[in-house]
Amino acid sequence: MADHKIISIDGMGGDHAPRIVVEGLERFAQTHPGVHFLLHGDEAALKPLLAKAPTAAPRTTVRHTDKSVAMDAKPSQMLRQGKGTSMWNAIEAVKTGDAVAAVSAGNTGALMALSMFILRKVEGVHRPALVGSWPTRKGVCAMLDLGADIAADAEQLVEFAIMGAAFSRAVHGVQNPRVAILNIGEEELKGHESIREGARLMRASNLPIDFRGFIEPDKIGSGNVDVVVTDGFTGNVAIKTAEGIARMISDMLKDAFKSGPIAMLGAMLVLPAMKTFRAKMDPRKTNGGVFLGLNGVVVKSHGGTDDVGFAQAIHVAASMGESNFRQEVEENLRRLAPATAAAAPAETAAS
Amino acid sequence: MADHKIISIDGMGGDHAPRIVVEGLERFAQTHPGVHFLLHGDEAALKPLLAKAPTAAPRTTVRHTDKSVAMDAKPSQMLRQGKGTSMWNAIEAVKTGDAVAAVSAGNTGALMALSMFILRKVEGVHRPALVGSWPTRKGVCAMLDLGADIAADAEQLVEFAIMGAAFSRAVHGVQNPRVAILNIGEEELKGHESIREGARLMRASNLPIDFRGFIEPDKIGSGNVDVVVTDGFTGNVAIKTAEGIARMISDMLKDAFKSGPIAMLGAMLVLPAMKTFRAKMDPRKTNGGVFLGLNGVVVKSHGGTDDVGFAQAIHVAASMGESNFRQEVEENLRRLAPATAAAAPAETAAS
Repeated sequence: MADHKIISIDGMGGDHAPRIVVEGLERFAQTHPGVHFLLHGDEAALKPLLAKAPTAAPRTTVRHTDKSVAMDAKPSQMLRQGKGTSMWNAIEAVKTGDAVAAVSAGNTGALMALSMFILRKVEGVHRPALVGSWPTRKGVCAMLDLGADIAADAEQLVEFAIMGAAFSRAVHGVQNPRVAILNIGEEELKGHESIREGARLMRASNLPIDFRGFIEPDKIGSGNVDVVVTDGFTGNVAIKTAEGIARMISDMLKDAFKSGPIAMLGAMLVLPAMKTFRAKMDPRKTNGGVFLGLNGVVVKSHGGTDDVGFAQAIHVAASMGESNFRQEVEENLRRLAPATAAAAPAETAAS
Repeated sequence: MADHKIISIDGMGGDHAPRIVVEGLERFAQTHPGVHFLLHGDEAALKPLLAKAPTAAPRTTVRHTDKSVAMDAKPSQMLRQGKGTSMWNAIEAVKTGDAVAAVSAGNTGALMALSMFILRKVEGVHRPALVGSWPTRKGVCAMLDLGADIAADAEQLVEFAIMGAAFSRAVHGVQNPRVAILNIGEEELKGHESIREGARLMRASNLPIDFRGFIEPDKIGSGNVDVVVTDGFTGNVAIKTAEGIARMISDMLKDAFKSGPIAMLGAMLVLPAMKTFRAKMDPRKTNGGVFLGLNGVVVKSHGGTDDVGFAQAIHVAASMGESNFRQEVEENLRRLAPATAAAAPAETAAS
């Protein structure tokens, strides 16, 4: 059995589960013949759906459980009572080696807490980080941390840079990712101490990473960097701001396009030309955040996505599972250890 | 002489000064007969422009100076050498009482440094804050701090709430502004300690402010709050993210609309229906940030704006100058003093 081609799926997580989960599985299976699935959830609900998924079904093993995690469950409660849920079992299968990665569209807080608890942090990583994809004029860029934690000191920002670069290579296929730290100016003197110190550590390190210094939030869309590093509070504010503005503009455009017969005719003529634009801004195309820094890959899908979005989240999991992500991160963390020691202030080194 | 109707203008600040400054003055003057202007800058450059501004010219006094602040000047350098520049003189006129407010489209860092130095902080305010306007589905909302400083503790967030509410009333005409603190979740347990403590102080205070707790960045566009309070680093990231996404979408739309003859025809039919949309997203309509917390009003206009945008910045200055902003803030700061003392931890109160 080729272990590296099995993806573990939480069949019951998300607003439209289990239907869109199985539909997403089928959609993904059609273009990825080598991947098999472990599907966790209620057999009685899953079997009829698999009957309508002729490509995925022969490659899917259902692992039955009655229990699932409610979308509004508290993470702390799930740590105590979550054992045996479809989410727990999906993650557990990564720990046991039955699968190379897990995907869930369920409750974010619970998924993060259970992933941390079951898989544990990689040695050398102080905090896990949630990485996601951000559309740019030239394609897509990776950003982390999007909210796994609220703070990050200088060393953690460097760890995020290492993990983000490996993610960009594994999932976005960028051979030599350009990495920058998010800041409110490009000058050395701007921003929090942790940010300035993080940039100094990056420059002092001998990491094989193309570090480009600071980037301002309004420059991300230019597509001139591939990885943007920030603390989880700031990253979460940035991504939610971007989502909010994009949604507001999209709603206003739709209102304008439907405002009368002439506008509707104009919209019909203009829509084909907007295909690239709509594809780029389609949140389903950037679905799939990954909790980096754990002993195993867990992908978080948006709870409200459809089969196209869920298939994209499986794609992220498969790309991570087939990549050298883990070895690359481990090697760079080893490179980092002597570099940060050398760059540390004298009094710390002497103590 | 009616002091409250004179606005002091930096004639030489901005990418297109002094031309757009005088054009903006003329545009504003046409709809505001009661306002007079003190225009600081090079008389030889300003006089010919005023000759083409028949409404503004009779109400404008030019105060000549050869010196101006370069767009790339360092703030520290301007503190030493800025005396006598058009920017310095524009601010100085507010201090002497010759004008109720100053407007400049010049170098932001220098304007902030000179304003702080010349006008000094209001007693009771720990840090000044830069407030700006953010478009929403229902109109506009005020956000602060947009980057006057990088950090803000709980008490400073409360001071921002007081100043933001007074700004919303004075400039946006909201009688009873709804105020919220920016956070990455709406629950009490989310976010930095300073944010949670700030919310606690707001609730414990007896301020006459309609405090609505936390707001997530993707909810600002709903228009359900009138003032959003945050630290300057986060606020600057949020506004630059919003600007970047809005510009990227706008550029992609323009590309789509120009991509071929059918799309161009469609765009022609659809554009009239997009009038409201374009007006709402027009950055000129929200031009004019104000440094709050100083002994006098200084308005920062975008450096690259045109006459429409500059007229809007003058409008912000005039609204602030004619309002009860200062008295309202002073009263609420007095209300706050006993409230924060009572809400302080026991050990502090006992010491």
